[in-house]
Amino acid sequence: PSKLPGYATHQVGVAGAVLDEDNGKVLVVQDRNKTVNAWKFPGGLSDQGEDIGATAVREVLEETGIHSEFKSLLSIRQQHNHPGAFGKSDLYIICRLKPLSYTINFCHQECLKCEWMDLQELAYCSNTTIITSRVAKLLLYGYNEGFHLVDLTMRTFPAVYSGLFYSLYHKELPETYEGSATLL
Amino acid sequence: PSKLPGYATHQVGVAGAVLDEDNGKVLVVQDRNKTVNAWKFPGGLSDQGEDIGATAVREVLEETGIHSEFKSLLSIRQQHNHPGAFGKSDLYIICRLKPLSYTINFCHQECLKCEWMDLQELAYCSNTTIITSRVAKLLLYGYNEGFHLVDLTMRTFPAVYSGLFYSLYHKELPETYEGSATLL
Repeated sequence: PSKLPGYATHQVGVAGAVLDEDNGKVLVVQDRNKTVNAWKFPGGLSDQGEDIGATAVREVLEETGIHSEFKSLLSIRQQHNHPGAFGKSDLYIICRLKPLSYTINFCHQECLKCEWMDLQELAYCSNTTIITSRVAKLLLYGYNEGFHLVDLTMRTFPAVYSGLFYSLYHKELPETYEGSATLL
Repeated sequence: PSKLPGYATHQVGVAGAVLDEDNGKVLVVQDRNKTVNAWKFPGGLSDQGEDIGATAVREVLEETGIHSEFKSLLSIRQQHNHPGAFGKSDLYIICRLKPLSYTINFCHQECLKCEWMDLQELAYCSNTTIITSRVAKLLLYGYNEGFHLVDLTMRTFPAVYSGLFYSLYHKELPETYEGSATLL
């Protein structure tokens, strides 16, 4: 095993799938600077020290003007030698968000179009990317049959040595499995 | 939104929870160079360009001598200002692995102890870390009631522009939600 010090190998991008549960519509954009106009979830790179959910909420607001709150983590993509990643690897995380406002005021520098689209339509339309389509299907599954089936929920815990905190994401653990001794 | 080029902000560590489904025992180690001897899952930092599952399998082999195969992703931790991360943020991913060999031959430079421990014992013992305890409970839940309840499974897809492939992790999607038009 390597004894070399660790170094940053990954950039982390985060997208927000903002779903209005009252009408089943999800917020989508088309990027301005792509040759193909595919519907996508708004998103972008994490700033240094920024939590995953915070990146999703910030990027959604910057691109679309919609305020939202973090609900869960839905999917993670790992990609190596990604053209935009300068030789680094790329982790792209898609979060489920809940809208807190509904009036779109999108960034015309970044986006060509922005709209609330029926989730069912997004899941089965052809002018989208594979990852958007798969996450739309996953979101549709959760919307129809319960978000507990698809969500990784977040909890915050104190770090052992540093006095800082960390965020842990995984499937909801039933109450009956909770409870423990005092841990290190 | 920032127009600056992306750069690597995160180091990615991966641990492997190797569970022998025949007897409910899981592979744990105690690090040599820690003040507190807590039971943990073996793991370490991803090499440049290395897939998450490959890191878990490699680190488990290096630390314990156990051969294993990747089954799923169980949990993700995000931590900022982590002491070992040189000012970068730290993503730590725990995978579920299946053992392919059973005879421990552990690295005495890195580990003080290594053993197959009863999963129930690990989930509720006190000399472990919070993250290990929570993931042990999650693994126990999956072992008792079905791994589909806790697993993020992996699929590989072609990237749009580069001709490369990426790995996508999320909860299993029921067959009825699959199927689509030809995507971009």
